[in-house]
Amino acid sequence: MNGENVLKLIKTPGAKILSYSAVCGKKEKEGPLGGGFDHYSEDDRFSAPTFEKAEENMQAEAYCRAVKKAGENAPEAIIAGDLMNQCTASSIAHKDTGLPYIGLYGACSTLAEALALGAVLVSHGAFEGCACQVSSHNCTAERQYRTPLEYGGQRPPTAQWTVTASACFVLGREGGAEISEVFFGRIVDMGINDPCNMGAAMAPAAADTLYGYFKATGTSPRDYDMIYTGDLGREGSGILCEIMESLNCSMSGRHEDCGRLIYSAKDDVHSGGSGAGCSGGVLAAHILPGVERGELKNVLFVATGALHSPSSLAQGGTIPGIAHLIRIIKGA
Amino acid sequence: MNGENVLKLIKTPGAKILSYSAVCGKKEKEGPLGGGFDHYSEDDRFSAPTFEKAEENMQAEAYCRAVKKAGENAPEAIIAGDLMNQCTASSIAHKDTGLPYIGLYGACSTLAEALALGAVLVSHGAFEGCACQVSSHNCTAERQYRTPLEYGGQRPPTAQWTVTASACFVLGREGGAEISEVFFGRIVDMGINDPCNMGAAMAPAAADTLYGYFKATGTSPRDYDMIYTGDLGREGSGILCEIMESLNCSMSGRHEDCGRLIYSAKDDVHSGGSGAGCSGGVLAAHILPGVERGELKNVLFVATGALHSPSSLAQGGTIPGIAHLIRIIKGA
Repeated sequence: MNGENVLKLIKTPGAKILSYSAVCGKKEKEGPLGGGFDHYSEDDRFSAPTFEKAEENMQAEAYCRAVKKAGENAPEAIIAGDLMNQCTASSIAHKDTGLPYIGLYGACSTLAEALALGAVLVSHGAFEGCACQVSSHNCTAERQYRTPLEYGGQRPPTAQWTVTASACFVLGREGGAEISEVFFGRIVDMGINDPCNMGAAMAPAAADTLYGYFKATGTSPRDYDMIYTGDLGREGSGILCEIMESLNCSMSGRHEDCGRLIYSAKDDVHSGGSGAGCSGGVLAAHILPGVERGELKNVLFVATGALHSPSSLAQGGTIPGIAHLIRIIKGA
Repeated sequence: MNGENVLKLIKTPGAKILSYSAVCGKKEKEGPLGGGFDHYSEDDRFSAPTFEKAEENMQAEAYCRAVKKAGENAPEAIIAGDLMNQCTASSIAHKDTGLPYIGLYGACSTLAEALALGAVLVSHGAFEGCACQVSSHNCTAERQYRTPLEYGGQRPPTAQWTVTASACFVLGREGGAEISEVFFGRIVDMGINDPCNMGAAMAPAAADTLYGYFKATGTSPRDYDMIYTGDLGREGSGILCEIMESLNCSMSGRHEDCGRLIYSAKDDVHSGGSGAGCSGGVLAAHILPGVERGELKNVLFVATGALHSPSSLAQGGTIPGIAHLIRIIKGA
């Protein structure tokens, strides 16, 4: 785990989260964090004829709401990505915004990647402000990554449920929460090749990033109010905590996973939620409101991604994981 | 065209191109720029059992060569992307490098996006140096985006030939060429929906970015030794030049397109080369050597991308284009 300490802490003073918005599907609205979403679609279709177009509309909806809340502090650029092939939910949702567009692919880690890059660009003055956005949709992801929805395939206990949600965050020089530090992770591949166990594939990457961050900053999990991972689910969270214990870096009582928070036990999602919209939705619907209320003053947000494709797995490949970290503190 | 002037010029002083390397397939090696590539694969397979794995190996080869040339100035991060679903050529090629990994998706504009982000990150000191890399492979792209290779489908005159190449550029504080300014483009969609005419889909985005850049800097095409677009091909280059003429911003004698340079007329590629490896290969095999020899002192490099997917087109969508720009000057 990160023995050579090559990962680099980047300070991003003054990069604030100015406004944000999250929209979701019906299942997420009915979940424990449903009240934190700004808008939802009763049939997950967002008035679109296909699920792919629904995901585009969902992004456009979250973007418009976040920018409206930002008021006069309009973003100068967009940093976005999603899980659909060629990231078309993002590019098509933003094709008429008229702003510089920086497209990312980091699978489910994309939000932390976008917020980290955005924080650097805003903190260093490249842009006065920017919008960072992600999405995922259960119906576009499941049929693209696993099996056609109509199969109704049996899901193993380690499987996660791709969250239908999009979240957009406008960064600027003003705002209640600050992204004070960012820490880009590296790819970690422990040989997992089961697309129904993404938590196991991503947990070692989360551990690598977190352990590297604690080493780089000379801090420990106890120095933070809470450490949120993106979408490890129950399976991956257990593995992460075991790895951290083995490194004498226990996260006991300090760790939560967005994939465990977004649904309740009765939602029949097995290991929990996943997808870029999972960490995005929970950051907007749960974590940042907690920061605003003063309940959370110093948290780590670590979105995790699985960098495989159906083709790479079909050709005998494994699932490389990655995790990017941002530190969020309550601003002055 | 960019009437509101919302695109933003970002200065990146001190961001130098420290080293670079490009590798390619047989057809590119036999083309007019073949002598500029460091390595090629006689059968385009790079010792791999599948074309997808060949593209991974091709990226790994270019990365190792570029980093070796950088000597003691090893990169601190990797910024990369490609055209394969979920950008697996990049993620799998870099899974053992042990460096922070920032994945991008900008279709064929990815190299300019990566170099622009890399220049900002290095210029502002977030990283001392970083590697920016792209690839494309004719056999992975054609079967993913258009028809299975075995069909041997007829190609219309506007079609382009996806270049088999990968190029890697190590940025740092030292080097012969400097990326002095970057200019991120916005998405422009003029309603083109023919995947065999990408030049027409991307040309308006190139014009939007170039016109915005000239306005933002108060310069004109005559102020540059050459303006290189990424992969508009003959068809798209003609459209770009017509649009620029109509804006009283003639690029006559100052414009070349990487897609026109990489193959010769006898190569039977119709409108020219395309793919992220096209602009990458030409930058490494032709443009930067020209800068080093002192023949080019001040050039614009504008990689163009088509942000569609086979699914988005099948569902009645159009092909949104984007173009990012970097200015390269001969360093002191």
